[in-house]
Amino acid sequence: MEKLTRNNRVVAITKILIETPNKVIGLNRFSELLNAAKSTISEDIVIVREVLEKLEMGSVETISGAAGGIKFIPKMGKSAREDFANELCNALLEEGRIIPGGFIYLTDIMYNPQIVSKAGIILASHFKGMNIDYVVTVETKGIPLAYEVAKSLGIELVIIRKDNKVTEGPTVTINYVSGTSGRIQQMCLAKKSMKPLSKCVFIDDFLRGGGTAKGIKDLLKEFDSELVGTGVLVDNVGVETKCASDYVSIIELEYDKETEKLNLEPSKLIK
Amino acid sequence: MEKLTRNNRVVAITKILIETPNKVIGLNRFSELLNAAKSTISEDIVIVREVLEKLEMGSVETISGAAGGIKFIPKMGKSAREDFANELCNALLEEGRIIPGGFIYLTDIMYNPQIVSKAGIILASHFKGMNIDYVVTVETKGIPLAYEVAKSLGIELVIIRKDNKVTEGPTVTINYVSGTSGRIQQMCLAKKSMKPLSKCVFIDDFLRGGGTAKGIKDLLKEFDSELVGTGVLVDNVGVETKCASDYVSIIELEYDKETEKLNLEPSKLIK
Repeated sequence: MEKLTRNNRVVAITKILIETPNKVIGLNRFSELLNAAKSTISEDIVIVREVLEKLEMGSVETISGAAGGIKFIPKMGKSAREDFANELCNALLEEGRIIPGGFIYLTDIMYNPQIVSKAGIILASHFKGMNIDYVVTVETKGIPLAYEVAKSLGIELVIIRKDNKVTEGPTVTINYVSGTSGRIQQMCLAKKSMKPLSKCVFIDDFLRGGGTAKGIKDLLKEFDSELVGTGVLVDNVGVETKCASDYVSIIELEYDKETEKLNLEPSKLIK
Repeated sequence: MEKLTRNNRVVAITKILIETPNKVIGLNRFSELLNAAKSTISEDIVIVREVLEKLEMGSVETISGAAGGIKFIPKMGKSAREDFANELCNALLEEGRIIPGGFIYLTDIMYNPQIVSKAGIILASHFKGMNIDYVVTVETKGIPLAYEVAKSLGIELVIIRKDNKVTEGPTVTINYVSGTSGRIQQMCLAKKSMKPLSKCVFIDDFLRGGGTAKGIKDLLKEFDSELVGTGVLVDNVGVETKCASDYVSIIELEYDKETEKLNLEPSKLIK
């Protein structure tokens, strides 16, 4: 292949880094693809790193050693986080979000890639450096967000099912009390889905009483693994007795049943 | 802000484009963020476009008019597609994938962001230019893949549930015969989740008899909407009577029950 200019190489390096967050990429790969010496690539990387940091778009870390290379850590600057959280609060205040039973309709938000990808970066930033092995969630509404957090952390997603599926092989099942319905429900996880002694974070759309988080803690024990944190998009701070601890959220919500009004504000992760 | 060099600007432009595929971004946004004239930004964009096309990493389209700007269309070159499909075939041949009942364990693959994001680009490329409004899937295993296809196409995801949820408001429910279990199952979709007269594609992990695709076709009719295509990761070509038509896959699979061997090959989307 013909030689590329520096302008050209930094475009390609940026593209590759951003598409595989938190994955170490050896300089050889860039060197071969872009037909340039490793020393030249190293200079290109300095440029990419400086711009991304200056614009608060993320950081590029160098990992030394035989399996070394560089990796991209997604990040959102304070003002971008604030803009995002405020837009989200406005979206939640739209007409028609409060549905029969006093629940908040979040489905369209949780399935919108533009929103979920940003929320994923904010939550992942909180858990970075904790050597998390898996992001876990319970089907269904939190899956896209949990997926984005896993992608951003460069790890795999694990989805806990509400019933046993023939396509997942042998499973472990536990019972728990759901905060949303107040009923006893079950959680199933395929035995093949997790290595023992794993550190996990639980990601979901909405935190009410925290019953699900407690159930996951118990289920993970059966896999000799540990829940080390919980992250949600919306925390219902109006619920006083939470059995979840160690959790973070993006938005705090309080619903006044009498006036049928929502109070919303960005959580401390945003500020 | 101080002026950035061209090297710097192309990094930022690449980052922003790649993070919001198929979304039109006005030149003003780049111009303000990077403190540069629109004419300068236009020249930067030419560089970004040329590199991405040369390396078969995607294309940058210009949209003229008042709401105009540029948008990034993700793409994977032929050799990258082939490498990906071959790696996937090898992963499917790993020991222990065939689980009791003759099913193939795909869960870890479907929840791996590195794999799913690439598969999403391949499937989305097939449906681009068809003015799709929503990507639909049925919970649960296909959700991350469907999410990536929706993200790549710049549209929203719609997840059909297997039962009614209190948090989704009024729903429409239909019954269908599942290809996997052979049993009558139901599909529920919140009335709020889709605008009428929408064009949808159905994305899933595995196509067996196509019963689910047929069910979705029926369900979408209730929303005055239309299923215009189906895309799956793995097509079980061993099943002779398919009720699905107009579908594409990445891998074709045949399972020989007697020898307990899998035959796998990349589908025509790859070649």
